[in-house]
Amino acid sequence: MKLLVINPNISTDVTRLIEAEARRSIRPGTELTLATAPFGVAYIETRAEALIGGYAAMQIAAARYAAHDAVVVAAFGDPGLVALREILPIPVVGMTESALVSACQQGSRFSVIAISQRIQAWYRETIAAYGFTDRLASIRALDEPLAHIGRVQEDQGERLVALAERAVTEDGADVLILAGAPLAGLARTVAHRLPVAALDGVTCALHQAQAMVDLAPAVARGGSFAAPPAKDCRGLPEALSRLVGRQPLATQGA
Amino acid sequence: MKLLVINPNISTDVTRLIEAEARRSIRPGTELTLATAPFGVAYIETRAEALIGGYAAMQIAAARYAAHDAVVVAAFGDPGLVALREILPIPVVGMTESALVSACQQGSRFSVIAISQRIQAWYRETIAAYGFTDRLASIRALDEPLAHIGRVQEDQGERLVALAERAVTEDGADVLILAGAPLAGLARTVAHRLPVAALDGVTCALHQAQAMVDLAPAVARGGSFAAPPAKDCRGLPEALSRLVGRQPLATQGA
Amino acid sequence: MKLLVINPNISTDVTRLIEAEARRSIRPGTELTLATAPFGVAYIETRAEALIGGYAAMQIAAARYAAHDAVVVAAFGDPGLVALREILPIPVVGMTESALVSACQQGSRFSVIAISQRIQAWYRETIAAYGFTDRLASIRALDEPLAHIGRVQEDQGERLVALAERAVTEDGADVLILAGAPLAGLARTVAHRLPVAALDGVTCALHQAQAMVDLAPAVARGGSFAAPPAKDCRGLPEALSRLVGRQPLATQGA
Amino acid sequence: MKLLVINPNISTDVTRLIEAEARRSIRPGTELTLATAPFGVAYIETRAEALIGGYAAMQIAAARYAAHDAVVVAAFGDPGLVALREILPIPVVGMTESALVSACQQGSRFSVIAISQRIQAWYRETIAAYGFTDRLASIRALDEPLAHIGRVQEDQGERLVALAERAVTEDGADVLILAGAPLAGLARTVAHRLPVAALDGVTCALHQAQAMVDLAPAVARGGSFAAPPAKDCRGLPEALSRLVGRQPLATQGA
Amino acid sequence: MKLLVINPNISTDVTRLIEAEARRSIRPGTELTLATAPFGVAYIETRAEALIGGYAAMQIAAARYAAHDAVVVAAFGDPGLVALREILPIPVVGMTESALVSACQQGSRFSVIAISQRIQAWYRETIAAYGFTDRLASIRALDEPLAHIGRVQEDQGERLVALAERAVTEDGADVLILAGAPLAGLARTVAHRLPVAALDGVTCALHQAQAMVDLAPAVARGGSFAAPPAKDCRGLPEALSRLVGRQPLATQGA
Amino acid sequence: MKLLVINPNISTDVTRLIEAEARRSIRPGTELTLATAPFGVAYIETRAEALIGGYAAMQIAAARYAAHDAVVVAAFGDPGLVALREILPIPVVGMTESALVSACQQGSRFSVIAISQRIQAWYRETIAAYGFTDRLASIRALDEPLAHIGRVQEDQGERLVALAERAVTEDGADVLILAGAPLAGLARTVAHRLPVAALDGVTCALHQAQAMVDLAPAVARGGSFAAPPAKDCRGLPEALSRLVGRQPLATQGA
Repeated sequence: MKLLVINPNISTDVTRLIEAEARRSIRPGTELTLATAPFGVAYIETRAEALIGGYAAMQIAAARYAAHDAVVVAAFGDPGLVALREILPIPVVGMTESALVSACQQGSRFSVIAISQRIQAWYRETIAAYGFTDRLASIRALDEPLAHIGRVQEDQGERLVALAERAVTEDGADVLILAGAPLAGLARTVAHRLPVAALDGVTCALHQAQAMVDLAPAVARGGSFAAPPAKDCRGLPEALSRLVGRQPLATQGA
Repeated sequence: MKLLVINPNISTDVTRLIEAEARRSIRPGTELTLATAPFGVAYIETRAEALIGGYAAMQIAAARYAAHDAVVVAAFGDPGLVALREILPIPVVGMTESALVSACQQGSRFSVIAISQRIQAWYRETIAAYGFTDRLASIRALDEPLAHIGRVQEDQGERLVALAERAVTEDGADVLILAGAPLAGLARTVAHRLPVAALDGVTCALHQAQAMVDLAPAVARGGSFAAPPAKDCRGLPEALSRLVGRQPLATQGA
Repeated sequence: MKLLVINPNISTDVTRLIEAEARRSIRPGTELTLATAPFGVAYIETRAEALIGGYAAMQIAAARYAAHDAVVVAAFGDPGLVALREILPIPVVGMTESALVSACQQGSRFSVIAISQRIQAWYRETIAAYGFTDRLASIRALDEPLAHIGRVQEDQGERLVALAERAVTEDGADVLILAGAPLAGLARTVAHRLPVAALDGVTCALHQAQAMVDLAPAVARGGSFAAPPAKDCRGLPEALSRLVGRQPLATQGA
Repeated sequence: MKLLVINPNISTDVTRLIEAEARRSIRPGTELTLATAPFGVAYIETRAEALIGGYAAMQIAAARYAAHDAVVVAAFGDPGLVALREILPIPVVGMTESALVSACQQGSRFSVIAISQRIQAWYRETIAAYGFTDRLASIRALDEPLAHIGRVQEDQGERLVALAERAVTEDGADVLILAGAPLAGLARTVAHRLPVAALDGVTCALHQAQAMVDLAPAVARGGSFAAPPAKDCRGLPEALSRLVGRQPLATQGA
Repeated sequence: MKLLVINPNISTDVTRLIEAEARRSIRPGTELTLATAPFGVAYIETRAEALIGGYAAMQIAAARYAAHDAVVVAAFGDPGLVALREILPIPVVGMTESALVSACQQGSRFSVIAISQRIQAWYRETIAAYGFTDRLASIRALDEPLAHIGRVQEDQGERLVALAERAVTEDGADVLILAGAPLAGLARTVAHRLPVAALDGVTCALHQAQAMVDLAPAVARGGSFAAPPAKDCRGLPEALSRLVGRQPLATQGA
Repeated sequence: MKLLVINPNISTDVTRLIEAEARRSIRPGTELTLATAPFGVAYIETRAEALIGGYAAMQIAAARYAAHDAVVVAAFGDPGLVALREILPIPVVGMTESALVSACQQGSRFSVIAISQRIQAWYRETIAAYGFTDRLASIRALDEPLAHIGRVQEDQGERLVALAERAVTEDGADVLILAGAPLAGLARTVAHRLPVAALDGVTCALHQAQAMVDLAPAVARGGSFAAPPAKDCRGLPEALSRLVGRQPLATQGA
């Protein structure tokens, strides 16, 4: 199967981290296409940045999904995920959602370990939107500015492990989620030091994407994830306008 | 005071409806600037279209907010609202949020009357994201294709009134919200026929925007609505990159 | 417009604080009538005192609402608010509800800063009754006996500011609500020292009251906020019995 | 033991129904004092009427609790219940709360059968305030005006049974609560016709009151149900001012 | 009346503690039968052990309920409670449920004091399953290995009292629940030292069991607590197969 | 990899249905062991039967897990799932949980189509225990007695499809779950007739089990899913006593 993995940020360093972990997480016969956002910010830690990243992911997905069996949105917080799921006829998975469903199958409550104080609000709201708040034991986050987003693991690895340990002993976490694409691969290297399972969003997303392709769900013709009703549109990239609109034209209603 | 009213859709017909009701809802001395999305769809009824509209609203707001005291996002569902609130140093209000807080001050539970079946999922999720689900009595919606988004009120007015009446008698609504910018002004004309208060999102948004300017809240320097930490960005309109980024540059981390 | 502002407590000192802030919060042309409860307690910090204050507010409102466009219940915790809303044909707003809806339009989560430990339970239950629990970051409260309810701001101002700062940095508040009529006006004087917007319930209530009068919602003829069905009553003040009852008579059923 | 049973309404007809069922629900050695509100309305079906009834119940309780071991608030909706619980040093139970805890011990979900359409909102909010919403299958109510509150059982008995049956077969109720003091005794007479247990609020309240006296819980010296901190009060009946206040005095702060 | 009290664990030491407190909690004329699980573990602190204990309780109840008026499941966490309630034609009460409903009638929020760190997850999930999470102030637990389950009160009494005090002052508990059958009787001895009511699950269960027998609810013929539809079964103790099955037979469907 | 698939019921007919669908859902190299409960009932539709089935599944799992990489509990409602997860050192998945997490990755809300009216309460409570209630659009169920549990698909297929269609058009389901092991394989045959994706719990469970083995989570040494603290036990099958206990012995504490 062929999977399109989208980094909704502009950091090619992070794309490389994502790709490395993704390649460790696929089965023989699974092929990957990696894509990096052509516009946006270095990494997403706010709702505003998630909106930008979501629209970037949508443009990439619209242009490139056709040759693939599923799409992976590879930023924790899942920018654009449900929007893509509405308009694409193939499965779409996200790092957060995949990590959450994997965590729920291993314990009652999970904690999220995050790379910045500010990013917590966005994560918390994403988790709430999925309806998983009752299973969230805590979010714990680094409280120092990040010198370099591509080297967070090296620079902050020990601090992240310490936060993870406190999530188990003080917050009651049964499972840990090391969150954020910049941490891709970290869980694999520190797992043996942690008292409970530590999940990597990229790993989980790749496994769930492959499971979803295996499951081969029917494309929705009803419900709120059927293709949107055709409507006039303007100014959108051609591939995207084919997915959401009745081609261009003059003013709607004219 | 000066208010920037953004229609996140491309329909200038709808912008005219919004403007007409907005002008009926302002106090002497309040000035309006109306803006229509330069790209996007004719009207928003899905999560995907809301993402597009949200990004269009963000671009307009970034470019034009400076001369204003507050911004109004004038589509029910509030595309981009919280994202704009994070990055702008002035109050930002939305039609849905304004209608909800107005409704909550008049009764225990409200119903939303909507223009299409499909739009209900997006509305329901928006209301849930604000935490108002427990006060939602029902969403009732038209179930016919819309011939012309600028003439929904004329074409479907009677059906909308009938849905509103059932929301009160069958669903237990204390307040009605006639939802969607294409219905701007309808509440005013049908109010006398309905058994409970009927709210118009545009009206509520304008009143709340003026109240927020009067309230003059401090610009956040802390919490999750302070300006996002500066970070590298690329490919964004200049006004937007000033709000979310540390100007362009080469690759982050390079 | 004319607004009736009711202090449901017997403290005329506090009424003066309310009035001063209310006058700073109105527009030209808005007139105020202040009223102080003729019976009750010095300030409300328990459910029992709220019941007494609520009934006092109801008596005042019944007797005096007629010449006004809206009623403001000026105690945090909103004693009697929904009851008044049911029986009066004009808008009724409360300090808590107004502060909550204003806070929700400025951030995701808010904290309440309160004047006593005991008062927290009542506040928490009021916020829950409105359905805003999920947006409550914390309630933080003074833990010393209050020497004089009319001088809390002077005596405890620094401690209140310190609690507010901790609510932002430790509890994740995006907005602060300085709660309780005895604190009326404090937000205005300490706003510049706090990292996020600090709201004053009196200010918010006055702005929301004026917005509600501008909105001019129809008087409910249906739903659970229509006037109560007429029924026999006895022993009530005449103005109140006109609102809730079929005039007196002998025993019901006789 | 001695129990004070308070009807917060003015209807002595209803007090007689309450007394009859209460006498059927006590053990040998339990004595009853019945009291009827000296002011208020014929029966409570709105939040406003509940506030009046709650204050009436508080006055009765303050004046007469001393010679008793527990107090029963005998109106469904429990007007004043938590307020009384705060200020009295003896157990206080309510019809709704007692019926809910009894229902929860017999099944997963319960339905409430009510005497008027309007009364449903108040019941629903009472149940929500106790945190039992998730276990509420439905509220079903008569939809005709009540000719005589003391004869609802005779006039509407068959309709009430029919509503109860539908609550089981259509709404999934495991237990039925026949709600409202005017229905006191009905469950006993129609139980054999219903497919699941049917509870009477008066019966449950009396059983719970006796169980609470047997349990003999300590009077709270901490937490939010300790006696309210003493504070100045004015204009209250003497017995009540002893419970909530530091005796009268001049203006607080004077 | 006759009550069957089941200890779902194998510890006869604990059965003796349960019996002693149960005898202090009954009225003249109430008779007790005590039963100890013939298989299982020494005490239950996990979901797995609760499943074993639940099945043991079911076997005892099936074999011995006939001569009784109600069944008490005497382990905090209520193993098997709802299952027994489905299949037995008499009331079934549990220690946790009884303590929760008693606590809710004395305050808004309660804390649970528990004997081990590990046991907290099971308690928290039990409370959530009953829908009481919103009223749970905290669970506080001992953090040392238990030397002897039958002597926890003597060995850890002071630590338990200290935890209870902190639950009131730091967590906002209005009521305390000293949880776990091994603590049966402790509340009675330490009540005078605690600032709020302290409940013993055994005491509450006995009082609620007697109240339920007094209430004499009808046996459900409908809803989800009617006797399960008869179906083929195999390998069950005879008494149990009479309750859940159509007697044995060969393979279902054969 | 090797998977142990446990049917917690005694129906070998149903085991055959499970096995057939399981074999269609595995990848090359995955091997299956099927096991049928040695005691219990023909199929589970109540909480009591789930307790019996859960204990049967626990005995099978304890005895046979050792040679496998993961365990699948193959009854909708997941009897014993979290208990097994606590005591086994390998992943354990359930049909309900797997179907829920798969559904959540394809839409916002799902409906469950069930084989009997009675079974709905148990399903609803299972879904609530996992925290997925907010995403449940509806449960719709057959309302006729089942002639033969192994032939439900043939006998009731058309009725099940009709229920599924109504769940989409009337209840707002984005995804359908055809629930219950007796329906294993049905989704595959009727998928083309349904407007949205239809999930089979067995299929989902097998895909999730394989994904979990691929993920290879660490065995918990902390949190509430670590192996239970060793304690005395008695009367348990040897394999089970090794998992939950400190071998037998005399009375605990003796």
